[in-house]
Amino acid sequence: MHDDWLAAPAAPLDGNAQAAARARQQQLTKPPGALGRLEALAEWLAARQGRARPTCKRVTIGVFAADHGLAAEGVSAFPQAVTGEMVRNFARGGAAISVLAYELGARLEVIHLGTVNDPSPLSGVIDARIAPATANALQQPAMTAAQCATALDAGRQTIERAVAAAAQLFVGGEMGIGNTASASACASALLGLPAAALTGPGTGLDAAGVTRKADIVQRAVDRHADAGQNPRAILRRLGGFEIAALCGAYLACAQRGLPALVDGFICAVAALLAVRIQPAARDWLLFGHRSAEPGHARVLEALAAEPLLDLGLRLGEGSGAALAVPLLRQACALHAGMATFAEAGVSAKDGA
Amino acid sequence: MHDDWLAAPAAPLDGNAQAAARARQQQLTKPPGALGRLEALAEWLAARQGRARPTCKRVTIGVFAADHGLAAEGVSAFPQAVTGEMVRNFARGGAAISVLAYELGARLEVIHLGTVNDPSPLSGVIDARIAPATANALQQPAMTAAQCATALDAGRQTIERAVAAAAQLFVGGEMGIGNTASASACASALLGLPAAALTGPGTGLDAAGVTRKADIVQRAVDRHADAGQNPRAILRRLGGFEIAALCGAYLACAQRGLPALVDGFICAVAALLAVRIQPAARDWLLFGHRSAEPGHARVLEALAAEPLLDLGLRLGEGSGAALAVPLLRQACALHAGMATFAEAGVSAKDGA
Repeated sequence: MHDDWLAAPAAPLDGNAQAAARARQQQLTKPPGALGRLEALAEWLAARQGRARPTCKRVTIGVFAADHGLAAEGVSAFPQAVTGEMVRNFARGGAAISVLAYELGARLEVIHLGTVNDPSPLSGVIDARIAPATANALQQPAMTAAQCATALDAGRQTIERAVAAAAQLFVGGEMGIGNTASASACASALLGLPAAALTGPGTGLDAAGVTRKADIVQRAVDRHADAGQNPRAILRRLGGFEIAALCGAYLACAQRGLPALVDGFICAVAALLAVRIQPAARDWLLFGHRSAEPGHARVLEALAAEPLLDLGLRLGEGSGAALAVPLLRQACALHAGMATFAEAGVSAKDGA
Repeated sequence: MHDDWLAAPAAPLDGNAQAAARARQQQLTKPPGALGRLEALAEWLAARQGRARPTCKRVTIGVFAADHGLAAEGVSAFPQAVTGEMVRNFARGGAAISVLAYELGARLEVIHLGTVNDPSPLSGVIDARIAPATANALQQPAMTAAQCATALDAGRQTIERAVAAAAQLFVGGEMGIGNTASASACASALLGLPAAALTGPGTGLDAAGVTRKADIVQRAVDRHADAGQNPRAILRRLGGFEIAALCGAYLACAQRGLPALVDGFICAVAALLAVRIQPAARDWLLFGHRSAEPGHARVLEALAAEPLLDLGLRLGEGSGAALAVPLLRQACALHAGMATFAEAGVSAKDGA
C-alpha cells in the first residue's frame, strides 16, 4: 500500500465565488452582519463549491469502527465487545448516527476496520478489516507501517465514493472502545502537552478512572517519544485504525475539494494529524461542536477552530457534526433565498 | 378589551411522561448523558406534550410587526418606513424568517399591529392594526390601557390559531424599527439596571449612536418611574404593540400548554414581562440563541435561561429561534428512534 498521495496539495479556493457571495450578503434584506456566523458560512462554502449560492443538500457520513490494543489496559468504561456490537447497531439503524443520517437524508457509510467481537458479514457495512485490533501501544507501535497506510487509504476510498455520489459535505465519525485514550496520546505527542491535560472521562470514567487512564496514556506517549513531532509516526505508534482513516479522509477531502465537518475530540485529533501532514487541509475543515471531553478545547485551539454548537455532547459517531448540518443548510437557504433590498423595495440603512 | 385572562394559571406538567422519557434515555445505546442537552430537551418536551416520545413536527411561527413612537428620537440605524416594507417582504417570502419557515415546513403567520408606512391590504398578513405606531414614550405612555390590552390579546389569538393547527411548538418573532430601544427601556425598568447596561447597537448603530440611544432610553425610563416594578405598567408605558403581543403569546402558550421557543433580545424581554406577570409561564419557555445584542445576556440571566445557539445573530424576526428548531427535532428523533441496549444486543457499561 503506497501512501504517496498523502502529501498531494489541497484543492484551490475560488476567490471569485467568495467575492460574489460576499457582495450578495451585503444586498440581502437584513442589517449587515445580522446573520452572524451564518453569513461567513455561506461565503466559506461559496469559495469551496465555486458558486455564489452554495448548497449542502447531499451529505455523506462515514463512520469508521475499529478496536484498540490499549483497551486491554482498562481505559474505557465499556467492554471492548461494544465496538462490534455498535457496528451492527449502525447497520440496523438503531444508533444515534443512524437516526441523524436518516433525518438529514444523508448517505451513511459504515466502514469496519477491524473489531475483536467481529460482527461480519453485515449487509450495509463496508468490509475493510485490517486486524481485530491495533497492538497495545504500551508494548509496541499500535500499527505496522502497512496497516497504517491501509487505514489511511480506507479514509481516502470513502471520500472517493462520496465524490462519486456528488456529496457537497463530508461528516466523519468513529466508534472504538478505548479510542479517546489513543486520541489523547496522539494529541499529547502532537501538542507537547502532558497526557493529564488531554485525558478525560470518554464514555464515562469516574475521577479515579480518568487518573488511571491519563497515566496509561502518558506511559504510551513516553514509550514512543522517538516519534518526535512527526505526525505520521505519532499516528502509527499511538493512533488507531479509525483515527488513521479519518485523517486520510480529511486529507482526501482537501485534495478532492470536498468540505468536511469535523465532529468531536477524536475526529479533531485526526484533523490535527491531517493538518500537520498537509497544512492546507485546514482550509477544507469546519467544526461541528465543542464536546464535553476536556482535551477537545486544546485540540480546537491548536486548529484555530470555532465550533458551531456547544451542547455538552460526548457521544462520537459523528453525531455532533451531524447535528450541525442543518445550520449549514439554513445558511445556504438564507443566502440563496432571501430577497435583496432592491428586489423587496426595502430601504437601506440611513446614510448607506 | 378585557385582559383578565393574563393571570390564568399555566398548564400542569406531566411528571409521568417525563419519568418515562428519562427511563427511556437511560436505555438508549449510548453512554449515559452522552447526548448532553439533547437528552434534557427530550425529557422537557415529554413533560409538556404528555407523552414519553415527544415530537416537534408541527411548528407555528408568529411574527408581530409594529412601529414605535420612540423612533422619532433617532434610536435606529434604519428609517421607520422599513417596518412596513418588511411586512410586505415577510408576506412575499423574501425575509430571513420566510426562508426559514419554508425550510422548516413551519406555518408562518405575520401579524400586522400597525405601521407608519402601512402596506395594507396584504394577502397572507393578519390585519390586527391598533394604530400607526405607539406614542413617543419620552412624552407619554407608549400605549393606552385599551391599546395594550388589544396587543396582548393579538398574541393570545395567534396562540389560539396555533393550537387549532395542532402546533407542537411556537416560535415568536418581531419587526419594528426602534424596538430594541423599547425593549431596553422595559428591561431597564424590570431589572432596575441603568439603560446603558441594556442598550446596544440594534440593527447597527455606531458607538456614538448607542450612547445617544442609551440616553434616550434612560430618559424614557425616568419619565415613567412611577410604573415601579409592575410589569403591566412597564409594558404599557415603555413597550410596543409587538412586545405586548409576544408577551400575551407566551402567557397564552403557558395556559394552553404549548411550548414556546424564544428568539433574541426583544422576545426575551417580552418573555421576562410574561414571567413577571405569571411566574409559572417560565415552565413553557425554551431559548433559541444568545444574540449579539449586549442587553440580551442580562435578560437571559434574569430568566435563568441557557440558549441553545450562540452564533452572533442579531436579526430578530424569530430567526434565531427558527434556526434552533432542528435541534429540538433531532432531540426528539434520537429519543424516539434510537435502539435500546436490549433491542440492539449491545453490552452496558462495565459494572452497570
